[in-house]
Amino acid sequence: MVTLEDNERIDVLFDSNLKVIQSKDVFAFSLDAVLLAKFVYVPIQKGSLIDLCTGNGAIPLMLTTRTKGHITGIELQPKLHDMAKRSALLNHLEQQISFLCDDVKNAPERLGKHQFDIVTCNPPYFPKHQASDRNINEHLAIARHEIFITLEEVIAVSSQLLKQKGKAAFVHRPERLMDIMMYMRKYHLEPKRIQFIYPKKGKPANILLIEGTKAGKEGLKVLPPVYVYDEQGHYTEDVLNYGRR
Amino acid sequence: MVTLEDNERIDVLFDSNLKVIQSKDVFAFSLDAVLLAKFVYVPIQKGSLIDLCTGNGAIPLMLTTRTKGHITGIELQPKLHDMAKRSALLNHLEQQISFLCDDVKNAPERLGKHQFDIVTCNPPYFPKHQASDRNINEHLAIARHEIFITLEEVIAVSSQLLKQKGKAAFVHRPERLMDIMMYMRKYHLEPKRIQFIYPKKGKPANILLIEGTKAGKEGLKVLPPVYVYDEQGHYTEDVLNYGRR
Repeated sequence: MVTLEDNERIDVLFDSNLKVIQSKDVFAFSLDAVLLAKFVYVPIQKGSLIDLCTGNGAIPLMLTTRTKGHITGIELQPKLHDMAKRSALLNHLEQQISFLCDDVKNAPERLGKHQFDIVTCNPPYFPKHQASDRNINEHLAIARHEIFITLEEVIAVSSQLLKQKGKAAFVHRPERLMDIMMYMRKYHLEPKRIQFIYPKKGKPANILLIEGTKAGKEGLKVLPPVYVYDEQGHYTEDVLNYGRR
Repeated sequence: MVTLEDNERIDVLFDSNLKVIQSKDVFAFSLDAVLLAKFVYVPIQKGSLIDLCTGNGAIPLMLTTRTKGHITGIELQPKLHDMAKRSALLNHLEQQISFLCDDVKNAPERLGKHQFDIVTCNPPYFPKHQASDRNINEHLAIARHEIFITLEEVIAVSSQLLKQKGKAAFVHRPERLMDIMMYMRKYHLEPKRIQFIYPKKGKPANILLIEGTKAGKEGLKVLPPVYVYDEQGHYTEDVLNYGRR
């Protein structure tokens, strides 16, 4: 029995039968999270995966369709963590997913260093000082801005959590490509695969997917581009079939 | 009156009326050079431009269709330098283009620091130690491998040659994205525009175009992707019209 709070609703996750509790007041998963959950390499039969800044848990939920491994999701905000836990129950996935409510920076101490095969993160995109929507809502501001964690801290923590040759995958804005690559190399997560997502033909990329291997060799592949919308404003086949192998 | 040596031929440059002397024995310009000459920002009415590792001069020749500024092309190999000079004569462009035969690393001392608005370079792509085609032909090996100049040296020299806010544009392999971005930031050429070129739908990118601004602010744009060939193996409209504004 799962209870919904005021303003919450149940949505179905893109291209799955999974249900997720959402709330516009707090945070709603976006295409970015869906793409990351389909982009990242995962072991199929077993393994330990962790999703940092997991929000309402959309990425761990989606990863269950690709792996039998155990997935941890860590989120600082109690309201979001509570939604994530209830979504896991709603889908009877509470055995496969554990949700923790804590600061991501405490994860290596709490969960142990070098314990994970895969780390994913859809981190806050905007620098702390960037005004844009900071004042709208505290929950949204924390999810979107580097208030409690910076990009460098996310990457440093990811590296600490990973076993040697483990993989970290991130989704971010292409504008931050330079920083993300520099921090990945700094923390020994050698970038191996990049993919740019374009809103439609003729427009610059607005989503960056990147995966690195801990202590991996150099050698980067730039995967085929994906357009999200066609000329009529509908999702393209490429995005609807994204990640189907 | 321009004389052709043994094994030389005159080709017409892609999408222009320009003639270029080529030789399969030595070096032939490629799509990479064509794209770079169309990708780079250029001042239209005046300015000083320089192309490093200019080979048979294809990039300076093509740049004359976009700018009235003066263009210098520098090439280490006398045989290629001589072809470039004769191509300039063939097109009556010897007033607008100067070709120098020298080591690119001597350019800042010989031509002066901070004198140029624009630097372009299609550098050797392969590390010195990478065997692939090194033994085929000395001229090709020098053009393709980091024998006389490394990527880091190309970027360091480019930065020295540029005025503040001047632009440097390079074409390279996507595998080297990480290195090229790191060196650009190291030498204060902040990456501002990137474009990936894909051979055809569904394949990873095989050409990277990147432009940075000397002492520029952070903020990178990833331009729309370009496919070179369509399903029938013909050039796409995108590549045929590349750079037409």
